[in-house]
Amino acid sequence: MFDHKEIRKFTENVFMAIGCSEKDAKLSADVLISADLNGVDSHGVARLAGYVRLFDHGRLNTKPNIKIIHETPSTATVDGDKGLGLVVAPFAMNVAKEKAEKVGSGWVSVQNSNHFGIAGYHSSLALEKDMIGWAMTNAAPLVVPTFSKEKLLGTNPISVAIPANEQPAFLADFASTAVAYGKMEILQRQGKPAPMGWVQDADGKLTDNNNAVKEGGGLLPLGGDREHGSHKGYGLGSIVDIFSGVLSGANFGPWVPPFATAGFHGVAAEQVGKGTGHFLGAMRIDGFRPASDFKEHMDIWINRFRSAPAIDGEKVQIPGDQERNFRAERLQTGLPLNDKVVESLEELGKRFGIKF
Amino acid sequence: MFDHKEIRKFTENVFMAIGCSEKDAKLSADVLISADLNGVDSHGVARLAGYVRLFDHGRLNTKPNIKIIHETPSTATVDGDKGLGLVVAPFAMNVAKEKAEKVGSGWVSVQNSNHFGIAGYHSSLALEKDMIGWAMTNAAPLVVPTFSKEKLLGTNPISVAIPANEQPAFLADFASTAVAYGKMEILQRQGKPAPMGWVQDADGKLTDNNNAVKEGGGLLPLGGDREHGSHKGYGLGSIVDIFSGVLSGANFGPWVPPFATAGFHGVAAEQVGKGTGHFLGAMRIDGFRPASDFKEHMDIWINRFRSAPAIDGEKVQIPGDQERNFRAERLQTGLPLNDKVVESLEELGKRFGIKF
Repeated sequence: MFDHKEIRKFTENVFMAIGCSEKDAKLSADVLISADLNGVDSHGVARLAGYVRLFDHGRLNTKPNIKIIHETPSTATVDGDKGLGLVVAPFAMNVAKEKAEKVGSGWVSVQNSNHFGIAGYHSSLALEKDMIGWAMTNAAPLVVPTFSKEKLLGTNPISVAIPANEQPAFLADFASTAVAYGKMEILQRQGKPAPMGWVQDADGKLTDNNNAVKEGGGLLPLGGDREHGSHKGYGLGSIVDIFSGVLSGANFGPWVPPFATAGFHGVAAEQVGKGTGHFLGAMRIDGFRPASDFKEHMDIWINRFRSAPAIDGEKVQIPGDQERNFRAERLQTGLPLNDKVVESLEELGKRFGIKF
Repeated sequence: MFDHKEIRKFTENVFMAIGCSEKDAKLSADVLISADLNGVDSHGVARLAGYVRLFDHGRLNTKPNIKIIHETPSTATVDGDKGLGLVVAPFAMNVAKEKAEKVGSGWVSVQNSNHFGIAGYHSSLALEKDMIGWAMTNAAPLVVPTFSKEKLLGTNPISVAIPANEQPAFLADFASTAVAYGKMEILQRQGKPAPMGWVQDADGKLTDNNNAVKEGGGLLPLGGDREHGSHKGYGLGSIVDIFSGVLSGANFGPWVPPFATAGFHGVAAEQVGKGTGHFLGAMRIDGFRPASDFKEHMDIWINRFRSAPAIDGEKVQIPGDQERNFRAERLQTGLPLNDKVVESLEELGKRFGIKF
């Protein structure tokens, strides 16, 4: 177990070592450590070496001039200037919140960015102002549309954060696929087969091969196959891609660049836009009804769902409960980083002369 | 096969017979006939008798005073005054479009409404103005959250309509469940078992019983079971419920009244809000980038996806293709209404003295 404060400090120092300002380094570390605390291990410091690799390959600008390039009172497009998505997304969310403050809602499409970490970090930034927050991002192609043999979509997550009164916030944060790719990597390490309905092979047949995605197959959209509604997961992933990529002028579909240059999907030779795209939004609750009324009704909603009779041995959870449970535990116990992650951090420490 | 023009005229006359203005009757008929033309038979004139039943039971106001009860420049809440959702939703969408015209986007939550037909009709109303349209609605509980034995959510559909240039619009319109309940009714008529992953029984076990929902079980969220991501479908259905119901002051969760009073789920004894809720939105494309640039990129997106190598014997479709194919065919061949629907229309014809 690793102390989250020490890992945070180390992470900040690495970001500063590649040229980030102290403010940006602190913010970026906060996004990553939040992922680790919330139990989303795949999106935490496990990716720190990946961000450094992006920098090494000239795809990351650690001193970006992030700016609004197009706007109306309730909408905007932001150019991330090849900055860390970890910094670009909070900038865009801030624009959305300022617009919401003035005209009720704000919606910001982002081009020329990179991986933004966990979507739920960004959507949650709206909560402090009694706003509902949205965050989505496109990503490099790992997912096959229904009936396609070719991977054309990323795991394209959606997060929506909704404030309540005495209850904690409702926080949905999920990929538009049956499972995130991280789950496949875990199976690969364990040498276990994948449950049917997660992936297909190069011919488009359902398979339990945990290496299928690397061998010409693809992750299935949420729903799995057509009979179980995969066209809905495909539709959802497409909406995320279009809002994040096409609306902003970023890359979209199969052209979205991979997170880091390592990995089995190369960078597409041609580009149809700039970098990776995101979409952030904020709506003021009291743009619709008094915030206190709404939040009381959210308490009723949450209590009612949480108290539903559950299947034996299980519990009906509210979106966000799992992350909160992890956080409560890990703030006490520390972060359980696996050996490969520890090794990658040690290497970074050596390279930059930072004590790990 | 039935001529769609005659069925449309008949439908208009029935709506006028229960007190709708000619304008409202024409609009309502247009929503229903669009569903039949687009192949969504469950949401077309098959439901006409249901709307009349709502009227008979005092739950439908055919002369509603639909109005904005709360607003900011980019948001509003609309009171549907117990009107037909078929009329209330287009009113709300119009408010959203007017706001988008002025400040870039418009978002409207609706309380005190009834069933609004197909979501895709309403989202598509934004297309003519080079806007992206959103439409969602909550509905009476048929769906179990992950690990719940109790039905707490409706099939809560989401529709997003996005304009393209030479290509037809992208039109996603889907329930947040593995399948719509209409699919179960078809299996019941055919005496066929349900595919595993569509429903669970009263104990929360997956089952192929096509009557499971009536016998204490429930429809599963998109994803099916936890292993295949049902918590994501549950999250999605919840977002639709909260935006439509809690934000507007309508009913939400298990309190949403059923479409018509017939059916196996009764009206909840208590109410936590007014009627059924919807959520409509419109965003001006040129609030983000020039509409012509965006629409050209949408053509690239659509062409790229449509030309992906497909699984043998299949085709990669774009959301909206299926509806367009049905429409092209049915405009020629007419509407294939089943015997039960024809019977229900004949009864309405007799009751109101309208020739069928």
